[in-house]
This record gives sequence, structure tokens and C-alpha cells, in this order.
Amino acid sequence: MADLKELKCVPCRGGVPPLDDLQIALFKPQTPEWQVIEVDGIMRLQRTFKLKNFAEALAFTNQVGALAEAEDHHPALVTEWGKVTVTWWTHKIKGLHQNDFIMAAKTDALLS
Amino acid sequence: MADLKELKCVPCRGGVPPLDDLQIALFKPQTPEWQVIEVDGIMRLQRTFKLKNFAEALAFTNQVGALAEAEDHHPALVTEWGKVTVTWWTHKIKGLHQNDFIMAAKTDALLS
Repeated sequence: MADLKELKCVPCRGGVPPLDDLQIALFKPQTPEWQVIEVDGIMRLQRTFKLKNFAEALAFTNQVGALAEAEDHHPALVTEWGKVTVTWWTHKIKGLHQNDFIMAAKTDALLS
Repeated sequence: MADLKELKCVPCRGGVPPLDDLQIALFKPQTPEWQVIEVDGIMRLQRTFKLKNFAEALAFTNQVGALAEAEDHHPALVTEWGKVTVTWWTHKIKGLHQNDFIMAAKTDALLS
């Protein structure tokens, strides 16, 4: 499989099903630190990043925000003192899309 | 009562009880848009601000972040496309302190 962090998001305007368990299992090894969670019946990818303090957490939020704007795919970012929780999913299909795994891999790469 | 948004946070290192219902009722009229919620047994003040898009949401997150650093009191900030949810509480006392109402009022003032 291609290196997810090197891929670009493709526009997703709906009309495709969310990834199924088998597809998720294929992508997951490239994003081992991310949890697949279900909230309100929607599968999502979530990871909490530990940072040194509030300022560093906010700086990381801005880095992820810039990435989101560049790819036109937007997460939920919970900024707190010393940590940021990033959650990716695809609103249009109410679930996970390859784009979400791409963005998770790119998010990891920000700190590597 | 003093105008909350003009007050400064006082250092809170614990050792005082969280605000009780009567005290909360006294402060609440100055922060009418905020909900008092309880999560994990801890009372918190929460408000969701609607913004135009992701960039404006992130900009508002940074404004609240700068305020938090200035007062050395830090919220949880959920940044999403078109909205930011701000939650204030005081970790040290596992509940609400006057500081949280001060910060809520100051957060409102950022957009006024």
C-alpha cells in the first residue's frame, strides 16, 4: 500500500459508502497510534497528543489546522493544557474515508 | 456585582470549595449564553460560538488561547469547521470558581 502520508485527499462529496471493517483493517497499520471510535453512530479516528503546556498545545492545533486547510478536510481539535485530541471523520458519508487515514498519517508526520 | 469581564483571575491553588448553586446563580446573569454542565462529576461552563468557516473558528480559538495565557487559566477549546466550543472549569477544585465566570465574560467580550 502507498505511504498514506504522501497521498493527497480526494474531494469527497458523498455518494460513496464509509470504509468497512476490512478496509479499516488495511489502513490501520499505518496509523497504529489512532483509535477507531464510534460516536453518535459515526466511526472516527482519534488520537491524543501530549504537549508540554498550553502554548505548545495551541501551536500544534494551529499546525493541524494549517494542514486541514491545505487539504480542505477538517477535524475536530480539542486543545487543552498539555494535550490536543484530534478526531478525523468524513461528515458527508457519516463515517471514515481513505482521506481520514491520510490526514491521520499526515498529522503524525507533523511531530516526527 | 462588579462587571465580571473587567476582573482579573485570582490564583487558585485549591483549598477552597467549588461554587455552590447559590453562588452560581449570582454569577450566571452576566454570562447568560453559557450552560452550566456536569461532566465526570465536575461542573463546567460551556458555550458554542458559531463562526463562518474553519479559518475563523481557528482564529477565535487563538484569541481565547491568548486570553487564557494572559490570565493563566486554561479552558478546553473544541475547534471544528464553523464553530468553537469553549469550556471553563477549575481543575484544582474540580468545579467552578469565580475565575471561570470571569473568563466566560471575557470570552464573550472577544466577539462583542
